[in-house]
Amino acid sequence: MAIRTIVWGENIHEHINAVVGGIYPDGMHSTIAAGLNGDAAIEATTATLQESEHGLTEARLEATDVLVWWGHKDHGGVQDAVVERVVRRVHEGMGLIVLHSGHFAKVFKRLMGTPCSLKWREAGERERIWTVNPGHPIAAGVPEQFVLENEEMYGEFFAVPEPLETVFISWFAGGEVFRSGLTWRRGAGNIFYFRPGHETYPTYHNETVMQIIRNAVKWAYHPHPPLKGIHDAPNVPVDKALEPITERGPKLHKAGEEGYR
Amino acid sequence: MAIRTIVWGENIHEHINAVVGGIYPDGMHSTIAAGLNGDAAIEATTATLQESEHGLTEARLEATDVLVWWGHKDHGGVQDAVVERVVRRVHEGMGLIVLHSGHFAKVFKRLMGTPCSLKWREAGERERIWTVNPGHPIAAGVPEQFVLENEEMYGEFFAVPEPLETVFISWFAGGEVFRSGLTWRRGAGNIFYFRPGHETYPTYHNETVMQIIRNAVKWAYHPHPPLKGIHDAPNVPVDKALEPITERGPKLHKAGEEGYR
Amino acid sequence: MAIRTIVWGENIHEHINAVVGGIYPDGMHSTIAAGLNGDAAIEATTATLQESEHGLTEARLEATDVLVWWGHKDHGGVQDAVVERVVRRVHEGMGLIVLHSGHFAKVFKRLMGTPCSLKWREAGERERIWTVNPGHPIAAGVPEQFVLENEEMYGEFFAVPEPLETVFISWFAGGEVFRSGLTWRRGAGNIFYFRPGHETYPTYHNETVMQIIRNAVKWAYHPHPPLKGIHDAPNVPVDKALEPITERGPKLHKAGEEGYR
Amino acid sequence: MAIRTIVWGENIHEHINAVVGGIYPDGMHSTIAAGLNGDAAIEATTATLQESEHGLTEARLEATDVLVWWGHKDHGGVQDAVVERVVRRVHEGMGLIVLHSGHFAKVFKRLMGTPCSLKWREAGERERIWTVNPGHPIAAGVPEQFVLENEEMYGEFFAVPEPLETVFISWFAGGEVFRSGLTWRRGAGNIFYFRPGHETYPTYHNETVMQIIRNAVKWAYHPHPPLKGIHDAPNVPVDKALEPITERGPKLHKAGEEGYR
Repeated sequence: MAIRTIVWGENIHEHINAVVGGIYPDGMHSTIAAGLNGDAAIEATTATLQESEHGLTEARLEATDVLVWWGHKDHGGVQDAVVERVVRRVHEGMGLIVLHSGHFAKVFKRLMGTPCSLKWREAGERERIWTVNPGHPIAAGVPEQFVLENEEMYGEFFAVPEPLETVFISWFAGGEVFRSGLTWRRGAGNIFYFRPGHETYPTYHNETVMQIIRNAVKWAYHPHPPLKGIHDAPNVPVDKALEPITERGPKLHKAGEEGYR
Repeated sequence: MAIRTIVWGENIHEHINAVVGGIYPDGMHSTIAAGLNGDAAIEATTATLQESEHGLTEARLEATDVLVWWGHKDHGGVQDAVVERVVRRVHEGMGLIVLHSGHFAKVFKRLMGTPCSLKWREAGERERIWTVNPGHPIAAGVPEQFVLENEEMYGEFFAVPEPLETVFISWFAGGEVFRSGLTWRRGAGNIFYFRPGHETYPTYHNETVMQIIRNAVKWAYHPHPPLKGIHDAPNVPVDKALEPITERGPKLHKAGEEGYR
Repeated sequence: MAIRTIVWGENIHEHINAVVGGIYPDGMHSTIAAGLNGDAAIEATTATLQESEHGLTEARLEATDVLVWWGHKDHGGVQDAVVERVVRRVHEGMGLIVLHSGHFAKVFKRLMGTPCSLKWREAGERERIWTVNPGHPIAAGVPEQFVLENEEMYGEFFAVPEPLETVFISWFAGGEVFRSGLTWRRGAGNIFYFRPGHETYPTYHNETVMQIIRNAVKWAYHPHPPLKGIHDAPNVPVDKALEPITERGPKLHKAGEEGYR
Repeated sequence: MAIRTIVWGENIHEHINAVVGGIYPDGMHSTIAAGLNGDAAIEATTATLQESEHGLTEARLEATDVLVWWGHKDHGGVQDAVVERVVRRVHEGMGLIVLHSGHFAKVFKRLMGTPCSLKWREAGERERIWTVNPGHPIAAGVPEQFVLENEEMYGEFFAVPEPLETVFISWFAGGEVFRSGLTWRRGAGNIFYFRPGHETYPTYHNETVMQIIRNAVKWAYHPHPPLKGIHDAPNVPVDKALEPITERGPKLHKAGEEGYR
């Protein structure tokens, strides 16, 4: 079965900015989803901010393996209940790919636990993306470096937790560097942040960019059943202990009582 | 100057449970603080849930290098505004040591971005704590293993992010294991989780336990000025670029405009 | 195409120790290879110490995706030239699964750069293996814990580098713990160490053990072309620089000269 | 007591290249040692390739807390016995700071277990070094970025193991990036690689460079007694087990026998 993937798009600038609308007439999410569907192993659909529950209902998320997230202008417009729902599914094992300005998305900040801040400059300058982890599955088939002739600059310090692995680092014409491809696991869910994708440039029409996102979807996917138990803190009764033990000393809880939260 | 440390205690069971009150007549926080003050490099004071703003005012946190946190029965009683204040200070560089049942403290869950769940059993069973990273500063002077004859069991899976380093792993008589000493950095702040410390046992009267907490305070401390800029996402104007660049292509923002959040 | 896997066996105790020979009449390597071949995605063959070049010729390694290594009694008998050959292929992207007493194999020590020492006891005691990273591909389908009723004890401190991720931790009846499933990448090659497998016990007849090794083979495999360039340190001539630069200042090397090694 | 530090210098180009001799008339090692001795917490001496046992006798290494290594032209001239001696001391807890072309030093390659290869260009181009981990002790007091106007370029892929933490990343005028400040622990020893320092430029006269090396010496130092036991693999006899167990099943070794290596 193909990897059930949702590309979530904020879907605002496509409608209010002529340049963005010109590059992505059907929305950035549609372009990205089409690029993913070019791979038979992936089955990508889309969801947007404007849909009911932002298109991310409980039932739909349950049937989703990987979520790709692009947002920028209205992070605050994403309902907190939907954010928690997404975060829970990541903990249970849904993969999450966060793109570009999604560094400030509520779902990403919630999972990172850090400010996720960075420097930026919108000057259409040259970005060179270097592969610094050529053995990583996300780098499969990616050259040692490639160029995006016009991109927004993101510069360090990028306030995220030290990643499991750093896969890409960007060089910018204006003198900055940025860790552009980073991996984490949170609960059972794999997370990949990928920097490029400013909406006024045709970044998601770039074949190498799309190759990386396809690789990331495959890497983030695990065919595990969801780890539903991750939200619980079960008491293991003394008489169910794996090795025989005798209860000793004082205790707070009665047998079978729930713990505090 | 000594490391300015606050030991925060929930301070409930000491007053409502005779066993806990008997072991820690002045409160667990006082016993822990006294143990830290045995080291001239540390200057520990206390704060409790019951104090105004839980004893963690803006001004006091500004003057704090490391915060030690013990809570259990009333995690929900900690005000969200204080949680955010603590989290911001950790991002700026304040160290944080989370003890035992603090795994479910709001500040810890907020910084980890994961459920922080685990298994547990209150049977006064034997815990053996093994040093699996003897070169780590937190393990300085700690034997290869030591015993707490009566402790609550915590068992895996412990739903926290993969740590920077695993320092201690516990063996329990009932058959479980647990990663008992784990480190992370979030922003500029060092975080250490240390498992032992159930309130019905005299764990914080154990000298090795206190040695580890003292080591952790010293490890978590950095003499950096607070990284106040970590909360900002500054625009770098084109004419201030480090290397001369020319603005090209379309853009969303006017010069000097704030980014979206 | 299936993952081309070699199971390398030292193949000594099977012939000189009746107990080992009874459990593994065709050799441990054959039993392990048969277990791997139960999965259609894997195509496992075997190689042994006694074969010419230990069965690991240049040509055969070139055509190998993942190497599984079991050795114990005669680590010193493995030729250094073959060790270097294996190490080079790992750097280029061949996966490596090191089993049990392979912790002291030359190939493993060479790739880790550490002593790889540990404590041990041969008492047929109970081992409980806990999954501490249930979202990891190597843990797919593995229960939260399982038992090997008779195993050799390995105890911490296990002198290996901090892993990328810790997947399994063992509990032993005699009081020890051990990080039993650890991952690293070296160059482009994925490495997994898995603890169980003392030759006097029927460990590789255990279905969960074999499930883990199958998972590990799949995890370690990448369909990348070998990263042959990893052994080189190429000079990038000034006139081939990606961005135009002018040579300035004094230099040691003439244009096109090789660097020092 | 001050941190007992040796600055090891290859000490060749200073004598055969007029430019290098002009910048470092007393040798690079002397300049670096003088910079370290500007900090009262450090007591730095020097050693060179030309000295007996390269100045790194058993006795001297035993009395050393941190070793700083600079070599380039004659890595092959370092005796293997001295390499092993240094590596053992790192495993036991001696800190190691490897500078610039030391990426190909035998001691570094031996500890990393990888090729340690990279790209390079000697054009005196501009290097900008960015702090990507401002909370790390090695970044204390270091600005968010600083410039070395003339340096040799080192470019990715840098074939080293994923570090514990990435502290600095370099931007080069010619279009490359490089992970310039990386940390690892091997055994009980802390290791820091720091990129700058081509001998034809006055890099070690730069105050920020020296501040970083001073920070690194302090970070690498631990006041632990040496972990001498790390080289052993002790048998734990059944009757000395921490928890009472009964020997069961067949075994290879007689009681008290040494394990295989």
